[in-house]
Amino acid sequence: MEISILRLFHRVERDKRVTTHLALVGRAFCASKMFYTGDRDKRLEDKIREVNGRFGGNFEVIYVDDPVQLIKCWKEEGGIVVHLTMYGVPLLDIIDELRNFRKILLIVGSEKVPRIYYEISDYNVSITTQPHSEIAAAAVFLDRLLEGKEFYTEFSNARYKVVPSPKGKKLIRLD
Amino acid sequence: MEISILRLFHRVERDKRVTTHLALVGRAFCASKMFYTGDRDKRLEDKIREVNGRFGGNFEVIYVDDPVQLIKCWKEEGGIVVHLTMYGVPLLDIIDELRNFRKILLIVGSEKVPRIYYEISDYNVSITTQPHSEIAAAAVFLDRLLEGKEFYTEFSNARYKVVPSPKGKKLIRLD
Repeated sequence: MEISILRLFHRVERDKRVTTHLALVGRAFCASKMFYTGDRDKRLEDKIREVNGRFGGNFEVIYVDDPVQLIKCWKEEGGIVVHLTMYGVPLLDIIDELRNFRKILLIVGSEKVPRIYYEISDYNVSITTQPHSEIAAAAVFLDRLLEGKEFYTEFSNARYKVVPSPKGKKLIRLD
Repeated sequence: MEISILRLFHRVERDKRVTTHLALVGRAFCASKMFYTGDRDKRLEDKIREVNGRFGGNFEVIYVDDPVQLIKCWKEEGGIVVHLTMYGVPLLDIIDELRNFRKILLIVGSEKVPRIYYEISDYNVSITTQPHSEIAAAAVFLDRLLEGKEFYTEFSNARYKVVPSPKGKKLIRLD
């Protein structure tokens, strides 16, 4: 399954850490890229490139000007579009259905997502109906969708690897 | 099961949104409170109180001066302590064991957590061995531990309630 994230309306100052966390979740939880709209943010892009350099993989962060156009293209190519929102249908009610698709674009908004995104999405999905965090929602969505596959994923070209340990930190250098 | 979060080393400026997201995740995912250390942050506390006022429940955010003392008291009262870290043991390896406990303190660090927290914790637990987000790690931990119970939780004294909807937003006023 191919998963990409679309992060809407990034604002450099206000969202720098939240959007970085979201991109890192995308990378760690087996998405292949994160598109983002709003402010272009070279620091965000550099940060993720740096993590790829250390821990491997080739997760991409790509700025897009026209997210609606991106969504339309995605759908034309046979992909489905899932919008995470506390107003949507509980994930657990439709998770089996979602596992049938081979290509998912996961839209992650910030405050006040315009109506068009609710309408253009194939699924509006909630991770509880409470206000919390788009980072948490994306992580739980991906963990559930992948049934924990991300716990066992190895990244290609990693220079460092963590060896799980009951106490302390074990980080080994691979190159 | 009673779950509390201990957020280490909050810094008002840098962490304001990240710690707020973490507290909201704690609330939405059935923890009863979040202790925090570092900078005292009235805005954080007010924000969570405001969410309780709208969406119900009585999730508490409590500043602590001495987190190590808090941990020791927690253990003396028969609680166990779980520290979330990318260096720890994969959650999936010990989740069944964790479900036997009735009282869990979940430590969520920021950068550079001192060694004592690794040593004093009963479990150091990872949500993948990749760097990502303490918000995501806490959410996946709680979702897995509770086996999705948070999807069906109703909050007492809520003034507003979201009604899940395939398109659009349905928010009903209860009082």
